[in-house]
Amino acid sequence: MNKQVILKQRPVGLPDESTWETIQSEIPTAQEGQVVVKQHYISLDPAMRGWMNEGKSYIPPVQIGAVMRAGSIGEVIESKHPTFKVGDVISGAGGVQQYALTDGKDWYKVDTKLASMPVYIGTLGMPGMTAYFGILEVGAIKEGDIVLVSGAAGAVGSIVGQIAKIKGCTVIGIAGGPEKCQYLKDELGFDGAIDYKNENVHKALKELCPKGIDVYFDNVGGEILDIALANLRMRARIVVCGAISQYNDLKNIQGPKNYLNLLVYRARMEGLVVFDYAKDYQKAAMEMGMWMAQGKLKSKEDIYEGIDNFRETFLRLFSGEKLGKLVLKVKDD
Amino acid sequence: MNKQVILKQRPVGLPDESTWETIQSEIPTAQEGQVVVKQHYISLDPAMRGWMNEGKSYIPPVQIGAVMRAGSIGEVIESKHPTFKVGDVISGAGGVQQYALTDGKDWYKVDTKLASMPVYIGTLGMPGMTAYFGILEVGAIKEGDIVLVSGAAGAVGSIVGQIAKIKGCTVIGIAGGPEKCQYLKDELGFDGAIDYKNENVHKALKELCPKGIDVYFDNVGGEILDIALANLRMRARIVVCGAISQYNDLKNIQGPKNYLNLLVYRARMEGLVVFDYAKDYQKAAMEMGMWMAQGKLKSKEDIYEGIDNFRETFLRLFSGEKLGKLVLKVKDD
Repeated sequence: MNKQVILKQRPVGLPDESTWETIQSEIPTAQEGQVVVKQHYISLDPAMRGWMNEGKSYIPPVQIGAVMRAGSIGEVIESKHPTFKVGDVISGAGGVQQYALTDGKDWYKVDTKLASMPVYIGTLGMPGMTAYFGILEVGAIKEGDIVLVSGAAGAVGSIVGQIAKIKGCTVIGIAGGPEKCQYLKDELGFDGAIDYKNENVHKALKELCPKGIDVYFDNVGGEILDIALANLRMRARIVVCGAISQYNDLKNIQGPKNYLNLLVYRARMEGLVVFDYAKDYQKAAMEMGMWMAQGKLKSKEDIYEGIDNFRETFLRLFSGEKLGKLVLKVKDD
Repeated sequence: MNKQVILKQRPVGLPDESTWETIQSEIPTAQEGQVVVKQHYISLDPAMRGWMNEGKSYIPPVQIGAVMRAGSIGEVIESKHPTFKVGDVISGAGGVQQYALTDGKDWYKVDTKLASMPVYIGTLGMPGMTAYFGILEVGAIKEGDIVLVSGAAGAVGSIVGQIAKIKGCTVIGIAGGPEKCQYLKDELGFDGAIDYKNENVHKALKELCPKGIDVYFDNVGGEILDIALANLRMRARIVVCGAISQYNDLKNIQGPKNYLNLLVYRARMEGLVVFDYAKDYQKAAMEMGMWMAQGKLKSKEDIYEGIDNFRETFLRLFSGEKLGKLVLKVKDD
């Protein structure tokens, strides 16, 4: 049987017991042009919270009664597809279920000899691509820049900071708790870290970056975005990647009241959606793969098990109780 | 004697009787390298409100006890300056006073046979330059773009809209009152106008631009900025030029709560300060002068008289009781 997590009701605030239900279906069968994927790992990302809201966004919302949308990776167990063969490991948006049926569109084959499956849905998947194009294309970093990143111990933030280090920037990360901050400095080579749960972020930032910041990569929104806006250098760039502090109360978004500093510092604030860069994913994956092989880029996954634990694992994104890329292992060994 | 308007006390909210005082001084005398300018016209601009606030901005605040800063134009009546001669008409930041003493730095000579003095501090001065570089460089308009501008009947907004029309864009202006809206459509050739004092801006914008906007040139901030953010097209640009709705209560700035649409629409929001483009002012003035000669660009000044009427005239910027560039004539005939 195929366990599937279905969107039952659009959440208000954090998802709870009424949001999803788990159902059992028959394992699907491939028709002409399709494959059946036995999923091994499911990617849990903050963006998934947005996908559950009604209304126009960069992607249509998950429909009530549909399988919850999620990135995933697994093994082809049946194929009537021209290129994907039984035994291939492929990655795509397989959703929160044990078996996915797909026509293969937007799925791609990976080589598990080069990297593990969780890495393919993390650093070499959507979060890594978001970090890569966000900091290089939208952030337009150059050597010597002072870069601030929030959600810095997360799947995107940790890669953003490491890429900025590779490019010769000074990097400060904001994360929750001393353990994460230590990790950023000791393991990932960040120049500084600010523990927003225990420090005055504004004061700490002033101390670490007395001259201000050239680039702020924002994963959190809210008050920390305002603090960043209060500490810009001339021609600074703010990359709007996410706003996890705001996702559960979209009716009362806290707008950045310091936005007029965009004028004072001739700065720009720009959003990105990773899908726009799809044609360059391969090039990015190759470059990041090389950095990983050279030990310059570290990938960290925080893996939990069992599709029945989907909701409580997902909520770790918002409580911050995880380090690196949050992944759910769904294949029973 | 030289009547001078001095900053007495930093205003909280709108300037009132306690903000400035008028004093009488001796008419100054030029030392080596200096000129004395008999001022004819003083430019009244929303930016002046910001210059009175303490704290770091793109320009140092006016000091308590100093002459109120303002752009101006007048005639050289005494010169010990190598290039400016008696009888030259020159423009610079002469302040709110009848006679200005200056070393000529950042002043430039104009030819009153080509345009009138009020035009030189309006369309061919700071407001015109702000419009020109704001819409062309930061807004990066191209033919066919749908452009929305707020404060559209003002010194900057009216030029922004006309330049966008010249460049082949569809232009919608937001202004207060039916008279201004009529002026935008009938006199300046805007494609549409929204009267924010009497219309539902969101609804009117949806009707005029059902597909959304490519560029929003913001002079007002507040709720109208949020409405613009809710109606973007892909890769839209928001030019942050000013926020007149917010200037009198900077402690409680209303941040744009729809800023996450920058992400949805891969849009950018960028500030400008006109001084950055100083090296290209001449080129811009020549191009705008040509457009004026060809009848494509209209310059409108709303001129009030008497330095004693400075405060009440200045307040028209905030009440909206003026049309086009607000100018104070200070030379007695």
